[in-house]
Amino acid sequence: MTDLPVTRNLAEWIVALRAKDIPDTVRAEGLRTFVNWFGCAIGGADHMTADRAIAALSPFAGAPQAGVIGRQERTDVLHAALFNGITSHVLDYDDTHLKTIIHPAGPVASALMAVAGYRPLSGAVLLDALIVGVEVECRIGNAVYPHHYDRGWHITGTAGVFGAAAAVSKVLGLTVEQTVWALGIAATQSSGLREMFGTMCKSFHPGRAAQNGAAAAFLAEAGFDSSTRGIEAPRGFARVMSDKQDYTEILGDIGTRWEAALNSYKPYACGIVIHPTIDGCSQLRGKLGEKVADIAAVELTTHPLVLELTGKRTPQTGLETKFSVYHAAAVALLHGDGSPTAFTDALARDPAVIALRDRVTATAGNIAEDEVHIRLLMKDGGHVDLHVDHAIGSIERPLTNDEVNEKFLRQSARVIGEAQSRAALDLAWKLPDLAAPSDLVSVSVPGQS
Amino acid sequence: MTDLPVTRNLAEWIVALRAKDIPDTVRAEGLRTFVNWFGCAIGGADHMTADRAIAALSPFAGAPQAGVIGRQERTDVLHAALFNGITSHVLDYDDTHLKTIIHPAGPVASALMAVAGYRPLSGAVLLDALIVGVEVECRIGNAVYPHHYDRGWHITGTAGVFGAAAAVSKVLGLTVEQTVWALGIAATQSSGLREMFGTMCKSFHPGRAAQNGAAAAFLAEAGFDSSTRGIEAPRGFARVMSDKQDYTEILGDIGTRWEAALNSYKPYACGIVIHPTIDGCSQLRGKLGEKVADIAAVELTTHPLVLELTGKRTPQTGLETKFSVYHAAAVALLHGDGSPTAFTDALARDPAVIALRDRVTATAGNIAEDEVHIRLLMKDGGHVDLHVDHAIGSIERPLTNDEVNEKFLRQSARVIGEAQSRAALDLAWKLPDLAAPSDLVSVSVPGQS
Repeated sequence: MTDLPVTRNLAEWIVALRAKDIPDTVRAEGLRTFVNWFGCAIGGADHMTADRAIAALSPFAGAPQAGVIGRQERTDVLHAALFNGITSHVLDYDDTHLKTIIHPAGPVASALMAVAGYRPLSGAVLLDALIVGVEVECRIGNAVYPHHYDRGWHITGTAGVFGAAAAVSKVLGLTVEQTVWALGIAATQSSGLREMFGTMCKSFHPGRAAQNGAAAAFLAEAGFDSSTRGIEAPRGFARVMSDKQDYTEILGDIGTRWEAALNSYKPYACGIVIHPTIDGCSQLRGKLGEKVADIAAVELTTHPLVLELTGKRTPQTGLETKFSVYHAAAVALLHGDGSPTAFTDALARDPAVIALRDRVTATAGNIAEDEVHIRLLMKDGGHVDLHVDHAIGSIERPLTNDEVNEKFLRQSARVIGEAQSRAALDLAWKLPDLAAPSDLVSVSVPGQS
Repeated sequence: MTDLPVTRNLAEWIVALRAKDIPDTVRAEGLRTFVNWFGCAIGGADHMTADRAIAALSPFAGAPQAGVIGRQERTDVLHAALFNGITSHVLDYDDTHLKTIIHPAGPVASALMAVAGYRPLSGAVLLDALIVGVEVECRIGNAVYPHHYDRGWHITGTAGVFGAAAAVSKVLGLTVEQTVWALGIAATQSSGLREMFGTMCKSFHPGRAAQNGAAAAFLAEAGFDSSTRGIEAPRGFARVMSDKQDYTEILGDIGTRWEAALNSYKPYACGIVIHPTIDGCSQLRGKLGEKVADIAAVELTTHPLVLELTGKRTPQTGLETKFSVYHAAAVALLHGDGSPTAFTDALARDPAVIALRDRVTATAGNIAEDEVHIRLLMKDGGHVDLHVDHAIGSIERPLTNDEVNEKFLRQSARVIGEAQSRAALDLAWKLPDLAAPSDLVSVSVPGQS
């Protein structure tokens, strides 16, 4: 228990923060966060998960206040937040706050971009609110991680709703009291089970977090109240949903230590824990070429979380393959691919992939999360070893801006073509100078350029 | 852990159930549940909580597919479910499944009535679906109560979302597989913290449960999938959100033992645990009349939950007074009232109430939840004792149909007048014969008759 008014102090920080308080390096990372998120939202826009959500819920949607990124539909702010949250996460290709495995941009940027078309705000304001929202959700995540995650909560949904509420509260210009309520309304909607991994509900979580967090801010603006201690009360978020509550992670050094500066961008379209394996197997594919046909068995020594999170032996769908280190290793060895095209329904059923997948074994070792040891046993009795010390995309080997661009174009081009993707990418980097960031949505609509 | 396919077996029961499988006694209780809920939705329709929610969210609402009970607004199905869920619970005057303290009708009936205007269904179909939804939420509640509630979850929200999903799945005619998905999508949205009691978020919980449960069914209908073991999986609802998982409560004797037949209706507009105190203090008011001015002190001996749940010494608002046994005792002694008019902002500030409230003490005793011992110490040194063995509204002293009607009229008349309330009440009892139950919404709109 704590007597510290955590929720109120956090709200005070959110309200008091001015643009000049955000260091340039933090803002630069915020812009990378935005660009990467925008590419992912376009890349996932034509996924069946989005098709079905939009088909189901559009009959109940409101006025066309905001566009859905990468699609023709326009819808109300709250549904746009939901749909953008789904598309930006559905390929498991977005971003990761490595300390908590939160995928920060989805809940926050999806909410903000939906609001931007309705309550006009500049790109600079949107960017700073994105940083605020990411900071809030990652700090709240730090306060309860890993116990909260271990219990079975999908932290991108459960913490993300606070990020969306904070960011939208900021752009609406809410008072401290209203922001306290928004965080409380967020707390009481916090949800999302890890059991849903491998199903359409996984990307539904950041979508609902964006939608519910935005709704929390609009409700608070209208005077809809909540507990003023939604985060820290004995029956508040942190104690009900976690065995750990470290409130210094929320308030300590706030405004000087920036979690928003620690975001990373996925080089591969799946859970971060398999990335070392894909990195290593892709390197081995480069070395061996067609000799991968001579592999008799693959022995992986990985961080224990790899087996816990991605231990599916026989994935049946594209979404399920993202939770199979065996599938990922096989496809990286056979095709050198870890992008969205490596995790399709077709490859889940591909005989060559299945044959190699079934010869992959993984053992938990006392090694880091961004590390892997790979041994290939060859049919001639020899073996090939490779050790990945820090996988690409980790803190030690972050994606460069060029790599972020390449990733953007690769996934976006499939949905809206090469030329339009380049235009969208160029405009995304100009976010801080845009008078109307909703122009970004326009440039992402298929066939618009 | 369990290997039992709990979610699937529950879905199979939901889909297979036919009207003839519901005993007449169960259906009769279902109709009482409906009538009581409908009166509460009218009675709470003009509450500031509803005003603010509607003001905040209407800009994002869709086509006028359904009316909001007791109000002029028409809105989309999902927002109607939310708003009806709020109004029917905001006075804390609705119903109680005493084994779990779930208020069953709010999440389920609010969803169904919203759907009824959009996908036409008869009153008989609506009533049976209400019974199915109540059965599902109460059984899921039984499986995790009391551990789940003790942890801090507002079980009306967390279990209610399953009830709404089940009921709407039933009226949409979903397949077993789709119903499994709907229950899974419900599971991953299950939320609502007890910390919010005494604020506008409390009634938001059944509202969101209705809205999110309905959305789950529409999503599942469109092929949006989820885990097939949303309730019982290692990272499913029951294990993540409770330390107790008794799946025999969900599947045991299903269709023969009916939880839906165990519903009770609140005689007083507050948490059920204070009802014995209000019952007793109202009786004492009847005995003493104006001599209540001579009370020096009030000593209550109550069930321990009374102090845990309703121990607010200095409530500041009407919503907070519902969580103060001291306020409730004082108002029952001074005015003989436990209805919504006993829990207002004005009475929270009333000097006479405050003066008596401050002279009430409560001690936890080894007695039943529906029991209380009251001792009044009089200024002349004497005392008056009263023992309530079973409070009105308990299983042993259920409200008669006449009392349900009286309660309906008393709260409804304030909002839509006496004549229109009588028309609404008459029509509500005719639900099983109505071709279009949305006619009930029409008759509840202020000024419509």
